[in-house]
Amino acid sequence: MAAFSPSPLRELMPALANKVYFNYGGQGPLPTPSLEAILASWRAIQELGPFTGSVWPYVGGTVSSLRRRLASWCGVPPERLAFTENVSSGCVLPLWGLPWQEGDELLISDAEHHGVVAACRELARRQKLSLASLPVVETRSGSEAARGAVLQALERSLTPRTRLVVLSHLLWTTGQLMPIADVAARLALHPNHPWLLVDGAQSLGSVPVAEAAAAADIYACTGHKWCCGPEGLGVVALSERLLEQATPTLIGWRSLADEAADTGDFHRDGRRFEVATSCTPLFAGLSSSLALLEAEGTDQQRLAQIRQRSAELWEGLGRITSVRPLLDEPPPAGLVSFTVEGQDPATLVQRLGERGIWLRNLPDPSCLRACTHITTSPSDLETLLEALQDLVAA
Amino acid sequence: MAAFSPSPLRELMPALANKVYFNYGGQGPLPTPSLEAILASWRAIQELGPFTGSVWPYVGGTVSSLRRRLASWCGVPPERLAFTENVSSGCVLPLWGLPWQEGDELLISDAEHHGVVAACRELARRQKLSLASLPVVETRSGSEAARGAVLQALERSLTPRTRLVVLSHLLWTTGQLMPIADVAARLALHPNHPWLLVDGAQSLGSVPVAEAAAAADIYACTGHKWCCGPEGLGVVALSERLLEQATPTLIGWRSLADEAADTGDFHRDGRRFEVATSCTPLFAGLSSSLALLEAEGTDQQRLAQIRQRSAELWEGLGRITSVRPLLDEPPPAGLVSFTVEGQDPATLVQRLGERGIWLRNLPDPSCLRACTHITTSPSDLETLLEALQDLVAA
Repeated sequence: MAAFSPSPLRELMPALANKVYFNYGGQGPLPTPSLEAILASWRAIQELGPFTGSVWPYVGGTVSSLRRRLASWCGVPPERLAFTENVSSGCVLPLWGLPWQEGDELLISDAEHHGVVAACRELARRQKLSLASLPVVETRSGSEAARGAVLQALERSLTPRTRLVVLSHLLWTTGQLMPIADVAARLALHPNHPWLLVDGAQSLGSVPVAEAAAAADIYACTGHKWCCGPEGLGVVALSERLLEQATPTLIGWRSLADEAADTGDFHRDGRRFEVATSCTPLFAGLSSSLALLEAEGTDQQRLAQIRQRSAELWEGLGRITSVRPLLDEPPPAGLVSFTVEGQDPATLVQRLGERGIWLRNLPDPSCLRACTHITTSPSDLETLLEALQDLVAA
Repeated sequence: MAAFSPSPLRELMPALANKVYFNYGGQGPLPTPSLEAILASWRAIQELGPFTGSVWPYVGGTVSSLRRRLASWCGVPPERLAFTENVSSGCVLPLWGLPWQEGDELLISDAEHHGVVAACRELARRQKLSLASLPVVETRSGSEAARGAVLQALERSLTPRTRLVVLSHLLWTTGQLMPIADVAARLALHPNHPWLLVDGAQSLGSVPVAEAAAAADIYACTGHKWCCGPEGLGVVALSERLLEQATPTLIGWRSLADEAADTGDFHRDGRRFEVATSCTPLFAGLSSSLALLEAEGTDQQRLAQIRQRSAELWEGLGRITSVRPLLDEPPPAGLVSFTVEGQDPATLVQRLGERGIWLRNLPDPSCLRACTHITTSPSDLETLLEALQDLVAA
């Protein structure tokens, strides 16, 4: 096996030096140059400011440079992006200011993160909306068949009252890829033209997102998973119609068109969903990590590397008796979920951790999940497969 | 003049090495040991994690250690604190989940930050509430007279429909101190017992806050101003009754009592208002800055130092023809606002900046504002006063 070399980026990640790491979908390792960029940014802010006429061009430049870079990744104009602290904030904040009507239905996939589901439940409770479930988590076939299955499930689940669809781009549980652009096209034909909220927690940095981000109304991402940026900074891409119709809810000086004026007018662009002071050095760190990824190839090329590794892992898992990958074919990206017959996933994760091998378990469907990135090495895969073989035999 | 020495902390702040700094109320300088603590935290997370069974005790310990320290500063149990990204989030987030009724009145002081006012306006628009103004900004007398004036204004402004009062602890414009505990006591006698939201942006780190934070329903603070911590981390202290009656609005995995369960039950304590991933190293940085301040004396002792410097500045300003401090007596804390006859504040700020002297101008009332902290030196005060004398004469 293992006809590949890990990305040279691996050597820049201290987190990968002392462990066998498969939790990119939880948090990506921070490359040393990005930590240095963060530190340099803090030093620049202290040198120029922290609150002076000299520091604002630096702060503004750092933020707008990252906004332009992410706009390019997301295939939307920079004005359609809002920075957030994390992906949950990006998913939820724009929802509260939409013009809901009593009885509107929120159609939520059965593979969404509990946090987003809980937020939708609370929104429904306060606004007297109803909730419905879009079944996608059992879609385990290859991409083309999965696409058809999801669109059929959507067709069956839409009602005249559907007003919002919530669907992840890459399911955090099974690793299946959802046909976001097709879903958006279908929703455009619905008389209500329901809003499309896409949780992109697992997609930005692992799969090309431009088509999906441009098609969704809310496409929420974080910098600290597959992008390998610092924790505490995310971004959400918003559609033109959402920017026109949604008012901000969590409001601070950054939401306001003129901070010094008493008019209270909000920015017309994505900044209306930004709030107040956030940590500028994190912007410098994420810019650095994105630049390092760009240097490794286009998003298509990087996905091909990720898939080579996940396919190898998927095949290796399939060869172990009593291990069963959740997907029927090699994964569309870097998430490889599987079950081990007769073994409690949490216990197995702990035992692997004791050997310095880190993956995670998931509650629903109950399974283990190993992620491969371009920095995954052949030795990582061999070590995990051997340890599993060993623990399963024990 | 100048019978004092600046705090030794000054020598640990690179931002103070190359400028004359009076913008502590905008952002405090970050001490080098705090930047080192941030860096060490990032390195520890990479060494142990970033997403492993080994890293969670470190992350949990860093967060809960800061929570305990801030609880002690705020005079409330740790369970009543929620961490936020900034002070605006702390003010606004708890408001959206309160049980409002159409026609409830929000009584907002005329000295609040535009961001909070805009958030209240949007809340009022959506929930069909009314807005009223509590006049406090013209209160320019010494503390005891100011206390009486504010309580009289409150008495005149309360109506049977008042349901929320919004008041800063230390007014960001004039620097006047508000009698928060007295206001809270008066509101407890009102049939509605209106909620009390206190913007503590200027107070934590400059004046003792325990009495006010324990008396308010929402007491929102930030770590990056008078506490001299990193930007991007704040905290809000919440009353028991607010935690019982307010549901969270910006919801993520950190809001949930059991992240892995599908119940969607929220934490009963302050964590119900926390959202999702934030930047753990910032917690280490703020802990470091608070410890450095603690080492300089009790909050009362530090306030005495701050007031010694602000009084000296206030007196010096009063000696310059055509300069007029806004307050009639030496300031209760470190904010010293003033006007200069015949001069545009923005232009004057720019001219001072050209000389490496940094303060800010404010729109309403139109004025300049210079802040003194324990790190302010006699030379800082002399340089500012001489430059003003010079520019005013020019």
